Amino acid sequence: MKEIKYKPIGIVHSPFKKTDNAPRQPAYGRGIEATVEIFPEYEEGLINIEKYSHIVLICHFHKSDTKPLKVRPPMEDKLRGVFASRSPNRPNPIGLSIVRLDRVEGRILYIRDVDIIDDTPVLDIKPYIPL
Amino acid sequence: MKEIKYKPIGIVHSPFKKTDNAPRQPAYGRGIEATVEIFPEYEEGLINIEKYSHIVLICHFHKSDTKPLKVRPPMEDKLRGVFASRSPNRPNPIGLSIVRLDRVEGRILYIRDVDIIDDTPVLDIKPYIPL
Repeated sequence: MKEIKYKPIGIVHSPFKKTDNAPRQPAYGRGIEATVEIFPEYEEGLINIEKYSHIVLICHFHKSDTKPLKVRPPMEDKLRGVFASRSPNRPNPIGLSIVRLDRVEGRILYIRDVDIIDDTPVLDIKPYIPL
Repeated sequence: MKEIKYKPIGIVHSPFKKTDNAPRQPAYGRGIEATVEIFPEYEEGLINIEKYSHIVLICHFHKSDTKPLKVRPPMEDKLRGVFASRSPNRPNPIGLSIVRLDRVEGRILYIRDVDIIDDTPVLDIKPYIPL
């Protein structure tokens, strides 16, 4: 099947500068504040986003450099398939984060409860609607 | 920022053959059965996935052909930003679906509660863990 190409719509600015100090579980990011800078050409796409208390960020794990099919999650003994894990190292290193949206100022989203490292490219944003 | 390239890991086989008969809201897909065929080279990545009752499918909306920044959701009068919508037509046409995982047979996932059209390329699968 043919390759699929995407272009980042924005970038995350976060206090986690390296993968090794980023939280290993989303719950550990509770309270951590960060911003998403949307690139000027996509700003219009943000209209009404402030109505949502939580948003889904779809990001590219830019520091991922291996694509194992089996991984060992933290605190576990056994290997499991990468699709049964949240490992950033995966065939297509796509990250999914549900974050709290505190406020929007122009093309800057102020977010909270973040486990994303600095400079992570953002591919898409969707409103979070619980199952 | 530079382009990001992904390669599909599998494909959805679903009863919805065209975008215009696919459900417009995920709730309307309730009960609908489909399968995900994972390509042979990624089968090992499925180990342990059967432990989860629900999974997140990250797909490429292959029928999307426009990239509007403002969209009008069904049953609404006003335009809103595409990032405050679930429209398949978006700058990077990435779809996110939470589906029930009924069973796994080899590299075929039997799923339910599906609003995905036939032949949709799958980019990633993650276990669904509620917020």
